[in-house]
Order: sequence, then C-alpha cells, then structure tokens
Amino acid sequence: MTNAYPDGRPGETADAGPTDQSNVMWGGRFAQSPAQVMTAINASIGFDRRLAAQDIAGSRAHAAMLAAQGIISAQDRAAIDAGLAQILAEIARGDFAFSEALEDIHMNVEARLREIIGAAAGRLHTARSRNDQVALDFRLWVRDACDGAQAALTRLIAALLDQAEAGADLPMPGFTHLQVAQPVTWGHHMMAYVEMFGRDRARFRDARARMNECPLGAAALAGTSFPIDRAATASALGFDRPCANSMDAVADRDFALEFLACATTCAMHLSRLAEEIVIWSSAQFGFAKLSDAFSTGSSIMPQKRNPDAAELVRAKVGRIFGAQAALTMVMKGLPLTYSKDMQEDKEPVFDAADSLGLALSAMEGMARDMKPVAGKLRAAAATGFSTATDLADWLVRELGMPFRDAHHVTGALVKRAEALGCDLPELPLGEMQAVEPRISEAVFEVLGVENSVASRVSLGGTAPAQVRAQIARWREEER
Amino acid sequence: MTNAYPDGRPGETADAGPTDQSNVMWGGRFAQSPAQVMTAINASIGFDRRLAAQDIAGSRAHAAMLAAQGIISAQDRAAIDAGLAQILAEIARGDFAFSEALEDIHMNVEARLREIIGAAAGRLHTARSRNDQVALDFRLWVRDACDGAQAALTRLIAALLDQAEAGADLPMPGFTHLQVAQPVTWGHHMMAYVEMFGRDRARFRDARARMNECPLGAAALAGTSFPIDRAATASALGFDRPCANSMDAVADRDFALEFLACATTCAMHLSRLAEEIVIWSSAQFGFAKLSDAFSTGSSIMPQKRNPDAAELVRAKVGRIFGAQAALTMVMKGLPLTYSKDMQEDKEPVFDAADSLGLALSAMEGMARDMKPVAGKLRAAAATGFSTATDLADWLVRELGMPFRDAHHVTGALVKRAEALGCDLPELPLGEMQAVEPRISEAVFEVLGVENSVASRVSLGGTAPAQVRAQIARWREEER
Amino acid sequence: MTNAYPDGRPGETADAGPTDQSNVMWGGRFAQSPAQVMTAINASIGFDRRLAAQDIAGSRAHAAMLAAQGIISAQDRAAIDAGLAQILAEIARGDFAFSEALEDIHMNVEARLREIIGAAAGRLHTARSRNDQVALDFRLWVRDACDGAQAALTRLIAALLDQAEAGADLPMPGFTHLQVAQPVTWGHHMMAYVEMFGRDRARFRDARARMNECPLGAAALAGTSFPIDRAATASALGFDRPCANSMDAVADRDFALEFLACATTCAMHLSRLAEEIVIWSSAQFGFAKLSDAFSTGSSIMPQKRNPDAAELVRAKVGRIFGAQAALTMVMKGLPLTYSKDMQEDKEPVFDAADSLGLALSAMEGMARDMKPVAGKLRAAAATGFSTATDLADWLVRELGMPFRDAHHVTGALVKRAEALGCDLPELPLGEMQAVEPRISEAVFEVLGVENSVASRVSLGGTAPAQVRAQIARWREEER
Amino acid sequence: MTNAYPDGRPGETADAGPTDQSNVMWGGRFAQSPAQVMTAINASIGFDRRLAAQDIAGSRAHAAMLAAQGIISAQDRAAIDAGLAQILAEIARGDFAFSEALEDIHMNVEARLREIIGAAAGRLHTARSRNDQVALDFRLWVRDACDGAQAALTRLIAALLDQAEAGADLPMPGFTHLQVAQPVTWGHHMMAYVEMFGRDRARFRDARARMNECPLGAAALAGTSFPIDRAATASALGFDRPCANSMDAVADRDFALEFLACATTCAMHLSRLAEEIVIWSSAQFGFAKLSDAFSTGSSIMPQKRNPDAAELVRAKVGRIFGAQAALTMVMKGLPLTYSKDMQEDKEPVFDAADSLGLALSAMEGMARDMKPVAGKLRAAAATGFSTATDLADWLVRELGMPFRDAHHVTGALVKRAEALGCDLPELPLGEMQAVEPRISEAVFEVLGVENSVASRVSLGGTAPAQVRAQIARWREEER
Repeated sequence: MTNAYPDGRPGETADAGPTDQSNVMWGGRFAQSPAQVMTAINASIGFDRRLAAQDIAGSRAHAAMLAAQGIISAQDRAAIDAGLAQILAEIARGDFAFSEALEDIHMNVEARLREIIGAAAGRLHTARSRNDQVALDFRLWVRDACDGAQAALTRLIAALLDQAEAGADLPMPGFTHLQVAQPVTWGHHMMAYVEMFGRDRARFRDARARMNECPLGAAALAGTSFPIDRAATASALGFDRPCANSMDAVADRDFALEFLACATTCAMHLSRLAEEIVIWSSAQFGFAKLSDAFSTGSSIMPQKRNPDAAELVRAKVGRIFGAQAALTMVMKGLPLTYSKDMQEDKEPVFDAADSLGLALSAMEGMARDMKPVAGKLRAAAATGFSTATDLADWLVRELGMPFRDAHHVTGALVKRAEALGCDLPELPLGEMQAVEPRISEAVFEVLGVENSVASRVSLGGTAPAQVRAQIARWREEER
Repeated sequence: MTNAYPDGRPGETADAGPTDQSNVMWGGRFAQSPAQVMTAINASIGFDRRLAAQDIAGSRAHAAMLAAQGIISAQDRAAIDAGLAQILAEIARGDFAFSEALEDIHMNVEARLREIIGAAAGRLHTARSRNDQVALDFRLWVRDACDGAQAALTRLIAALLDQAEAGADLPMPGFTHLQVAQPVTWGHHMMAYVEMFGRDRARFRDARARMNECPLGAAALAGTSFPIDRAATASALGFDRPCANSMDAVADRDFALEFLACATTCAMHLSRLAEEIVIWSSAQFGFAKLSDAFSTGSSIMPQKRNPDAAELVRAKVGRIFGAQAALTMVMKGLPLTYSKDMQEDKEPVFDAADSLGLALSAMEGMARDMKPVAGKLRAAAATGFSTATDLADWLVRELGMPFRDAHHVTGALVKRAEALGCDLPELPLGEMQAVEPRISEAVFEVLGVENSVASRVSLGGTAPAQVRAQIARWREEER
Repeated sequence: MTNAYPDGRPGETADAGPTDQSNVMWGGRFAQSPAQVMTAINASIGFDRRLAAQDIAGSRAHAAMLAAQGIISAQDRAAIDAGLAQILAEIARGDFAFSEALEDIHMNVEARLREIIGAAAGRLHTARSRNDQVALDFRLWVRDACDGAQAALTRLIAALLDQAEAGADLPMPGFTHLQVAQPVTWGHHMMAYVEMFGRDRARFRDARARMNECPLGAAALAGTSFPIDRAATASALGFDRPCANSMDAVADRDFALEFLACATTCAMHLSRLAEEIVIWSSAQFGFAKLSDAFSTGSSIMPQKRNPDAAELVRAKVGRIFGAQAALTMVMKGLPLTYSKDMQEDKEPVFDAADSLGLALSAMEGMARDMKPVAGKLRAAAATGFSTATDLADWLVRELGMPFRDAHHVTGALVKRAEALGCDLPELPLGEMQAVEPRISEAVFEVLGVENSVASRVSLGGTAPAQVRAQIARWREEER
Repeated sequence: MTNAYPDGRPGETADAGPTDQSNVMWGGRFAQSPAQVMTAINASIGFDRRLAAQDIAGSRAHAAMLAAQGIISAQDRAAIDAGLAQILAEIARGDFAFSEALEDIHMNVEARLREIIGAAAGRLHTARSRNDQVALDFRLWVRDACDGAQAALTRLIAALLDQAEAGADLPMPGFTHLQVAQPVTWGHHMMAYVEMFGRDRARFRDARARMNECPLGAAALAGTSFPIDRAATASALGFDRPCANSMDAVADRDFALEFLACATTCAMHLSRLAEEIVIWSSAQFGFAKLSDAFSTGSSIMPQKRNPDAAELVRAKVGRIFGAQAALTMVMKGLPLTYSKDMQEDKEPVFDAADSLGLALSAMEGMARDMKPVAGKLRAAAATGFSTATDLADWLVRELGMPFRDAHHVTGALVKRAEALGCDLPELPLGEMQAVEPRISEAVFEVLGVENSVASRVSLGGTAPAQVRAQIARWREEER
C-alpha cells in the first residue's frame, strides 16, 4: 500500500513492462528496452486517457483536412474516420484496453486504429507531431473546463440571488475584524458574493477567449512542408484562429496557468463564504442552519451536526493553488520548445478542475439549502453599538460638526453607554447632552437597526431598495 | 543588523513609539497606549506611503463631490483642495515628515491637512471610511501598475520585433528536450516570445478593465446616508463605474491577485527567455553574445563574462510567484468584510510590480543588445540529423508511404549515418537505397538546412516568408 | 511613487549610476559601463548591507588564519583587523556611506578598507572569492535567525505556560468543526499550542545544527592552492566543521530553505492560535478579552475594539510561505555552482525572519495579556450536548454495551433531548429509560461539565491533574 | 471524460450513492440522506484505502491493549484480531469491496469486521475516535514514507559514489553562471550532490524522529475516561512515546508538512542534477551520455535521443512543492481541534511521496548508467581561460602581489590572450612580461588543467586526493 519507494522498481506499474510494441512505435532504433522505472515515470496513459475524446476529435478534423487538401485519399480518410468513431465508442463503453507500454493516449488510439483499419492508420500522422497533437488535446480540455466553470458559477450565482432576494430586508450584523460594525442585510451580504463570483466567471470567459487558438499544424515545432489548411482545422474544432507561431504553439502552457489562476481566485472566494458558513453554523453564532444533506455526524459525539461540506470547500483553495504552484514551477526556466517536463501539466489541471467543480457544486447546494436564523441575526445586528456611525453622521448632518469631531463625541457616548451597560438606543438623552448639549430627541430616529439599514441609500449600499436594485440588475444579466 | 528577534521589541521601529497624537486620531477611548510591538506590527506607513499620490487624488475627488452635493461648503472644499495640493508637493519634494505613530498614509495626510487648514480638515472624512479609502488608493496603484506593465511589454515586444526582423532568415537549431530537432530561424524563435508577451499584455489589459470600478462611497462597508454621488467620483478618477456592492468593494482584493497572476505568468515567460540567453551565452553553445552592459566580471576569475542580468531575470519569477502565494494565503478563509490581514496586500504587490518592471526593462535591454552568432547557429542547425523529418516527409510525399512507415525508414537511415559518422546530407545514395530502393537523387534537395527552413510554409511555420508575415502583422498592430 | 516601470530606467536607483570605481573593482576589462538598468537589477547593497557584521566577522577570521598560516604578514593582518573594526563601528554609528556602484556589501567594505589602510587591503581577498564569502555571511545570518527564533519561541512558550497554569481547571468547550464536542480546560487548550511551538523550536534547532558547517575556503568553487586552514576559520566562527565539498559549499542554499520551511510551519501554528483569538474576541463567542495594547479602534466606528494584532499574525503565514515559495522556485533547476539567481536568496529570508520575529513577539504579548472570560467559557462548555460521549462511555462501562450500540442509543437520547428543548443533564430519567430501560440515576454523575473534564484521566487528557502534569514537565524542561 | 462540472452531480461517483448502511454507521439520526454531491466531496475511501495496512495495525494494537487493560474480553480481542487479519489478507489479495457509502477506510474495515465477527466488532471503537484513529494511520504512513525516502537516498548516494570514484581524476570545467570558471573533476562534482542528498536524508531522519509519537488514546480530542494504557499501544506500534497533549494529537499535521518540506528540498536538489544532465546531453555540451533505458525517441524526428527521464525528474519539484503549498494553505487559520479541511492532508502527501520515490529511483538509474565523455570534458576544462585564477594566485604567491593587483594583472593578460586568439597556456612569455615584467617561465607550471586541479588541495577542494578522501569518508559512513 505504501509502496512509494520500491527497490528502484515502482510497484504500481510493475506489470506493465515494455513490449516489442513500444519499440515498434518509436521506429525500432533502441537496442535496449526502457527499464520499468522509466516506464513508470514516463508513461502518461494513466492520466492522459482523460483526453481521449479530444484526441479523437482532433484526429478526425486533421484527417478531414488532409483529405480536403489532397494529402491523403478520401478513402483513407473515411477509414480513419470510421475507425476513430469506433474507438471513441469503445472507450465510452469501457471496452478499450489502455496499454501503459504504448505510453500515452495518442499512441493507444493510433495502435488500435492500426488494428482496425490497417496501414492507412499510418497516414493519419502526416503533417502532425505528438507535440502539436497534445497541445491541441489539452487546450480543448482546458477550454471545456473553462466552459464548465462558467456554467457552474452561473448556477451558484442563481442560488445566491435567490438567497439574496429572500433576505433582502433581513438585518444582520455587518462585520469588520469579525466585530460587529454596522447593520446590513442578509441580501446585501449575499450580493457581495454574487459580485465576486461574477468576476470569477468573467475571468474564465477572458481566459477561454485568449486560449481559443488552434495549435494543430505546428507539427513538431517548425510547421510543415505539406500544403495543410490550418484555418480549416481551427474552424472545425471551434477555434477562433490558428496559433500564429508554430514554436509558441507547442512550447507554451500559459493557457493552463491562466485557467489555474482563475480557479485559485474563485476557490479563494469560495473559501471565504465557506468560512462564514462554518462560523455561522457554530452554536455561538447560530446565524444559519445547513440542511442535513450538507452536514455530517460524528462517530463518537452523536449530537454533532458538522458543516463538513463547508470545511471541505474551504480547503479546496489549498489544493487548487497547489496545482498552480506546481505548474508554474514546472514551466519556470524551460528553454523552447517542448520539453518532457511539460507532461506534468495535465494532472494539476485535471485535479484542480475536478476540485473546483466539486466545490462549486457543493457551495451551490449549500447556498440553496441554507436557512438564515432571522431572530439571531436581527438581535446580533442591534448589539455592539452597531449604529454608532449613524450617530456620528447625525452629528455631522444636523449639528454641522466636522466628521472627526463627531467621531470623537460618538466615542465618548459609546464609552458612557458601555459604563452604564446599555447600547446607544437605550442611552438617556440627558447622558447624551452631558457630552454634547445640542443633541436632541431626534437623534433616536437614526439609532435603530431598521432605520440604520434603510438610511444607507448610496449606490451599492445596504438599504433594501439598493439591494433589490442590485438583484434586479443581476436577474436581467443572467436571463 | 540581524535584529529580527528583539526581546519583544522589534528594533527597526524602536524610535517610533506611540504618541498622544495617535490616541487623538482614534477618538480618545483607549486607556492604554499600544505597546511598541503593536506599533511595529500594526503601522503601515513604512510601505503605504507609496500610495500618497493616489490617496491625495482620491481625497480631492471626494471633496469636490461633497461640495457639489452640498455636503461640505465650497469654501471648505477649496481649503481642503489647496491643502492637499500643498501636501502632494511636500511629499514630491521629500519635505514631508512621515510619522509611524500616525500609522498609515491616510492619517499622515489628514493630520498634516489639519495643521495646514485647521478644523475644516475634519470634514474631509465625511461619508468615507479608511476601508473604502484604502481600497481606492490601492486599486488606483494596481491600475497604474497594469498600465506600466503593458507599456513595458510594448517596449520589449518592439525590441524582439527588431531582433526577429534582423534574423528572419538566419537558421538556427530548433530544439525539443534541448536536443536539435529541426532547423528554424532566429526570427521565428524571437517571434514565439512576441506571441507570449503579447498574451501577457492582453492579460494585464483584461485585468485592468475588470478592476476599473470605484470603491469610494462604500464607506465602512454598508454605504452611507449622506447624499453622495458615487458616479461623480468614479468618473473623476477615471473609473468606468462605481463598484456595485459596498461590502464587496471594501472586502475583496481579487484585483490585486489578478495583477499578481498576470505578473507571474509574464515572469515565467521571461524566465524561459532568460534561461535560453544563459545557455546561449555558454562557451559550449556560443549562440549569442550579450553586450558588456548586461554582463559582469568575477572577483577572482578575470576572464568571466557572466550573464548576470539574464540570471536575475530568470530568478524573478520566484519572487513574483512568492508574492502571489503570499496574498492568496492571506485572503484564504477571511470572513467579510475588512480584516486587518488585508493590510498585508500591499507589500507583495509593490515588490512584484517593482521586480517585474525591472525584469522587463532588463530583458528589453538584453533583447536590444544581444547579437546572434550566425556561424555557430547555422552550423549547429545542420548537425544532429536535423533534417530527418524532411526526409520522412519526402518519403511520404514522393513515394506515397504512410507516415509511420516513412518514420521507420528514416530511423534506419539515421542509424546508418550514425554508424558511418556522417550526417544525412553526406549519406551516399547507395547507402540510402540499401534501406529503401526507391529513394532517388532528388532526396538531397530537402536535406539542406536552408531548404528545410524554406519548405516550412504552413501558416506560422519557420519559412522566412511566414516569419516576415508574422512580423508585419505585429508591426501593424503595434503602430 | 508608482514608478515601477520607467522608460527602461528604474527610478529608485537613477541617481546611483556606475562610476569608474566599479570598473576598478572588476579589473578594468569592460569597455562599456553597465547601464543604469543593470545597476538597478544587479546591485545588492540595498539589502545585503544587513550582512555587514557577518561579513566583517568572516573577514577578520580569514585574515587571522592567513597570518597564522604565513600567507600574509602579521603586520598586514593587524592593519586589516583594525581597519575592519573601524568600519564595523562606522556602520554601527550610521556613519558609513554605502555605495550602489560598489554593488554589494563585500565590495563596499573592501573599498573602504582600502581607503583606511591602503594596499594591504588587497591582500585580504587572498584564497577567497565572493562566492564563499557570501555563502559564509548568509549562513552566519541564517544561523543567528535560527537562534533568534528559538529564543522567541521560548518566550512564547513561557507566556502560554502561564496562561495554561492559570486556567488549568477552567472548563471551556473543546471544538471539532467549530462545533462544541466535549468539555476541555483552558489550560489543556493552551498546552496544545505549547506542544506545537515546542516542535517548531526543535525544528529550528535541527536546522541550525545541520547548517553549522563553514563554507569559507571553498574559494570560487574548487578550493585553493594556498595552504589555508579551514578548520581554524570554521572554529573561530563557531562552526562545527568546514563544509566537506567546495562546490556544494558555494552552490547550495538548502540551509536557507530549511529555515524558511521551519518558519512557515511555525507561522501556520501562529495563524491557528490567531484565528482562535479573533473568533474568541467576537461578540458572539466572547471567550477572551485582549488588552487595549493589542486592539485598535476604527476611524468611523468608535465602538470597535478590533483584534488587529491577531489578524496581522494570522496573515504572516502567507508572507513567510511566499518567501519559501520564492526561494524554492529560484533554486529550481540551477546548474552548479554559483549562479546570479542566488542573489535572490536574501530578501525572502530577511523578510520572513522579520515577519516571524514580529509575529512571535506580538503573539507572546497577546498570550500574556489575554483574559479568558470564565463565565462564558463554562456556560458554553455545558451546551450542545457536550457530554454525549460521556453518556456513551457510561453505557459501555456500566451496561457492557458494544461501543457502536452505545453510540446509537446516545444518538437517540440526544434526539429526544433536542425535541424537548433541553440538554442531556436535564433529560428526565424516564425519557432515558424509554430509550434504554437499563439506564439508572447514576448516569447523571457523568453528565456535568466538571465531572466530564475530571474523568479524562488518560495520559495527555484534559483532566486538570493531567494538564498540570503536562505543565510541570514543560516547566522542568524550560528551566 | 471531462466531466468535471456535472449539473450538481459529479459523475465519477454517481453510482456510489448513499445507502441505509451509511446511516446506520452514523447512528440513525439524520432524516435526510446526504446528496450525491455531498458523498462525492465527503468520501475519502477513494484515497485513504492506502491507509488500510496502517489502520488494521493500529486497530490490532488497540484491541490488544483494551484486552490487557480489561476493557474488552480476551475472547472479543481474539475475534477482532482474527477478523482484522482476515481483512488485511482480503485487501492484499484484492478481494475487498471498498464502499464509498461507508466513506472512509475506518468505516469500511469496521463494517467488514462486523460482517465477519458480529457484534464484538462494535467493541473495537471503545476509547477511540476516528480523530485519533486517522491521526495514527496517517502518521504511520508518513513515517514509512520517511523510511522509504531515506532508503532511496541511500541507494542514490551509492550510485553517485560509484560515479565519483570512477571519475575522481577526470577533469571537467567547473562552472559559475554556466561559464567555465575553473577546472574541477567529475568526481568532485558528483560528491557535491552526495553532500546535498546526505543532508536531505538527515532531514527525513530528523522529521521521522520528531513525528514518532503516538496519537492513539487522544480519542475525539479530550482523552478518555477508560483506563487505557497509551504507552503500551505506542510501544506496540514502534513509537517512542505517546503524544503529550490529546488536543494537539488530533489537531496538528505538522509532521506531514515537515515530510513535504524535506521532499521539496530533496526534489529541488534532484532538479539541479537533472538540469545538468539535460544540458550535458545536448549536442553542444556533449559531456555525458545517458543509456537508452533513460532516453526516448521522437514520433517525428527519428534521430532524437531525448533525456526524458531527466526532464521528468526536473519537473517533479513543481509537483512536490505544489503538495506542500496545498497542505500549508489547508492548515492555515484552522481553529482547534479537528476540522474536516484536514481530510485534504492525504492526497498531497501520497502524491508527493510517489513522485519523490519515482524521481529518486529514476535518478539512481541515471546516475548508475550515465557515462561521462572524457575527451569533451577535458577539452572544455582547458578552454575559457579556466586557469586565470591559478595565474593570479601565482602572482600573489611568487611575486608577493596583493591579490587585488594580481587580479588586475591577470585581467590584462586574459585580454591580451583574447586579442591574440589563444588561451593562457599559449600566451608567449614576452607578451606576459609586457604586462608584468617579473613573470617568469615558471608560471606555465600552473596553467595546465591537470596542474590546476592537482593544486587545489585545501580541505574539500578538487584535487583528486581530496576527492578520494571525501569518497572514503562517505564509504565509511555508508557501510
């Protein structure tokens, strides 16, 4: 089980030794078979099989173009196309026997194609190299992942909009430093995350647009002398255009790094909402209740209702950032063009995409199911001198005090209330006037939570009308 | 010197103890002065003084809006504006005495304003908080940094275009795995980096567009009851619009993370070109010569001409990525809205921006001065069986072989040449025909480096005409 | 201020152009002066001046050895020693004019030495190179930083031991998932951190021991032909022995990475305690009160008492980890021996050491001043069915139930209590017997918080006697 | 294939829905089944099955102790022990059906145990919790990984010692900045890595010693009221002692972080040697030849012999560091004690251990097979004015020049030789005397490569006798 350090012979791949087949594929030049350790470190089929659909789609587009350009015959193209379609079906059915000796997805598919259609399979690789082939497959995969992330964010935003709408008027404490600062509304709080996830989605959109250039036709690195039509394959595969420089096309992986950077920032946002859910779910806060679906029990403490899903979502930013760290370090200082180091590009991206997809789904579920505890939220919003700023603003507005002086007076009033063990709305007018004689009865109109919230009418402020306006704008956008 | 661990008293700030002044600014409520350690960990003026210009610009826009909305008088606004202009001039002249006891740039400026214009200074902070103030200042700074990065990338691209143009026909080896693969041209190689840096620039452009929303008016977190005009301040400061949600406006720093992600990927690209320069400068490669301006000597080995600038550029990706790692970890799991953790946002960004600016400038300089060594490049391009692919392609094209078979035959021919100690163009026709009888004299037309390069006419390929077309397109774009 | 991207001319160093002096130091071979951008990226004196004391100590030891071996005269050695002592005093007084044109601390010191003692200064660098010199200086600095970290941890441990002792009996909720799980004591909780910080200290100790080998005498990389005595300099500078391989001595920086790894883990521990302090300081928890010294106010909300110090400590792990990320990436893939990339080793280490020193001091201060709120802690410990496990254990012990069955029964009892709106100690015996008839009155003896805590007598458990035993063992160790 | 973002339904686990079984295990309190998304994010059996051997070993030791302490009967213990032995055998045979509904390895094993031995299985979990159980399992795994890493490093060191011995006299260029600096020997270069890997091994040893404390008996977090014997289980499982504090025991994962930090630094060292192998394998350097076993061909360029294994080893530092980044970020800011975030501790560690194991094995293989190309190395060592330092040292030693003056004179001589197109040994005496009249014929004795190497007799220097002494010392140590 812990067999990470075999006697030079990694055990997990011990049964997948080199075969004649592999030598055949490389052109029969090697006198000596790669050792098992080499097979273990070198083979990528264990993970790049996830590129099968992309690989086959790319090959079909390539074959169609080769035929259209007269580089292969229509007959060969038809055989290749049918063979590839059959292979795709075999893989989908789980009937395909992946071979580690054949190293990677490209060789696995090609070898099977040769079994099915014979020598014509050998014409598919004309004007192509594994370098542009893998660059294409991986780019198609990452492009799909960008689409997936955008769709998942759209669903999460929808769930948060519903939460925001239901709680547009519900007061809760707005925190800074986890200290009660000013009353806000549940809807306002939810909409803050809508803004964040909206930007995350836009980042994936920009990344997708930037990476949407087709590397196919770059061949090994220098382009090719065959009269290929790169615009045709680019278009067939949904790209905006071919990559403009063949060396860049096979040598860079910045598109994957951009995906990972977008994913990291999105996961960071998720970690913040997840942290809040964990804190809100504590007995001490009691601000929100998660459904049973997203809580779990304890093996020894039967009373526990643990916010496991939120904790796991909180943790995912580590893993996703770890993937970005990994690929950045892999790419650091690599000379052009392709180096085998770049085979390490896929697993971090796969893992990060899976983790982000799972985290977004789980957060969407929590955002749909979570119930704010209105009584607790409202009561908490009214404590901690939360309307002190309203008082200071009143002094500025009504008495014409400079803000800094008003701030000083408010500080003194809070100190007084603290000493008397009450909050500001309970502080007698006489006590207030002892600090600032010009304060009048009218001041109490700004000290209640509801008044405070209703008064924040500046654009983007917490007044329910503002919050509803935010929601309405988003509903419009999301339609 | 190494005084990192004093007896609870960090030495570097030992002389900057707390003063009555600081208590005045916070409203006089604290009975006990913050200890020196607190001052040391809490004060940000040591670094946020770099935000002085942004802070003053924001305050002037805010004051103008307050006056236009009738919240402060025109007279107060004029005094504030003049006072702030004077402070800006004092800072520019180096005449401003920054005080650590006043903690940050905001308090330093405001305290000085009070000295200059008296009580009216206290009206400036109306309808504002340090939370939206610092969010604004920092966003303005990062926006400037995006502009700076784009401009520096434009200069670097210009230098690379010149290199590419001068070497559009110059053959050199194209490498994979640092093994000679196929001949390319120096211009083609340079253009690969133009593509990369072009995408980097586009990333900064997208980041800038996304962050170009104004947080001012979010106040502490909830917005304000004063009748402010957020659109006015946003427009005055060059923003596209105000931030839509006040809590998001003060709580997020994703714009800084996006800047750092763009910077990291750009620095990764720089590290690759830098690595190549280091390798090319070695005696063994001898592909390029750096000017003395970007080389240094050794204190003990007088003959050395070290590519120090390239090495330092190569290293910067570490530092810039470190900044991104730092801020990502700082933001992980922070509940809304502002937490003091976020004070740690600035130093990584400042350092990354400085490092990137320096690295881009140094690379621009190297790209301008570097001289390719034509003889070495050309000779190296012709070795290592670099036209084996051309031979394989010839077999496909002329003899109609499936590519895989052609590949196999070429392998055998290379093996033969290796055994005879010659390269492919020197392999006698008879030796070739012993492997594949249909090979004719015509094959030698594709085996020379110049022929190979000229033949790669696919879009984005290394044929000089293709390279020149790439350059022309970029020249057009950069005009 | 934001001058990160000048027109190829980094502004901060614009006034520190190259001088003839710099050419003199390099041996007069360069025809062309390094451009200003090169000066800016290349010069390290801006930060390596922090190595001045180490540099001078190393040079004095080297000179003493050279004289003892007869390589320089006693007279020269005396002049060198006196000159270096004078320079050290000048630097300590702030009277030393550091010059960027002289690049680094080594050249700055040597140039000044030449001014003071003339030509003999030129003999100091015999049998030495800047490569072993900087490796020595930096290693001495990092060794000091290890010592400093250990001392700071010792002070923090002392503060935590005092907290633990004062609260050895004070019940509080033990949390998992931020849900109340079982009662523990404040002292027990504090002692958990003592264990963590104790391991952190041991890591610094191990790192220090491993790095305590002297690189001096490795010269540029190959050693030297002068009859030096490496054991003598090693011993004079407090090293255990000389580095065994001269190439390794100048080429590796793993000692700095090990310091950073220790610092990161320590900062991670600090972030956890800091997070708890932030949560405990919230109005909703109210478990602990920080002194004013480690809290701050708000510019707009006068009532706030923000745990700024704790938040800043929590954030430092980002910065320190960022330093480790930076240096790891810098070192990745560097061929032997010295490359200029390695000049980027110092700033991350300096910054991490400063940050850790500050964070440890601040945490020590908080740990000394923090007051647990006994009433809140005790009450919270008694809620949330916190003694459900005690009930389950009772069922196992007294009724002989398999634990899994006892667990199931306890779950049913908790559900019953939840339905009735009471906690377990309030659940009537009849209700209990309805679920499990064999339950008797005696069960109530294990359901109180005090009983629960007292019963956890397993080694390392939360029973006050166990906690006191832990404290006593540590007191003994720390004596 | 790219099914990372299902409609809230992660596809890979779609068939592993919740079952009644899972509710049974948690005590039957949840009214609602966990949704599939929750199962997908929550279940760990997909990866923690690698802890099966550790889990079973821990349970057997626990059961033996429970019986010895009279907490369970000898009969129950015997049944448990036999049942667990059977399960271990089933897993080893691949006959065990892991169930995702049972979440993790602990529940999978326990459920199977119940099938085999019935109700007695329910007694195993007495005085234990999943919290201390998983802490134990994981610590045992990481301890094994430390052992594995040490053993793999020992094998790598042995391979390098053989290389060093075979090439103890073989001159090669010593580089700084990838520029020829001074001649060294192949053996000396190899021994530099022996030192590095020796320190890496020592780091794993220290980490193992520090983590060798047993968490079992900490129970959920507070310890237990059962009369357990923690020393007995600790000893049975090979630990030095029990963890001293039960909360620390279940809440910290610093031992895993220390393992990852050791692995990162080791991988950094590997990346440096790998980079050298890649550079040495280039046609331009041609310093070393890898065996076919560790090279691969190209699908389109049949002549290529790519150092794939070296490139992959070079890349692994990214992945391993990514794991460290991931876990550090996961642990940042977690309140005590266990949080579900910590479930994310295992995959990074498993992946890093596998990657390191593979990289060490591959490097060991390369180090064994690699052949230095003596002619190329020797010739390269003689170029680039590599004995300039020897000349400078001669001037100091023989003419009594201060080193700085000697350095200056040497610079002038190199310049002269450069101008004449020769290296130093070919520079006529007359030319030398034109620069410094006192230079005599004797100077040529220090200018040859062999003389230079032989002269570096300082401890740890490159003189073959010194290199052999280093090897002998290591042979002794490794015996």
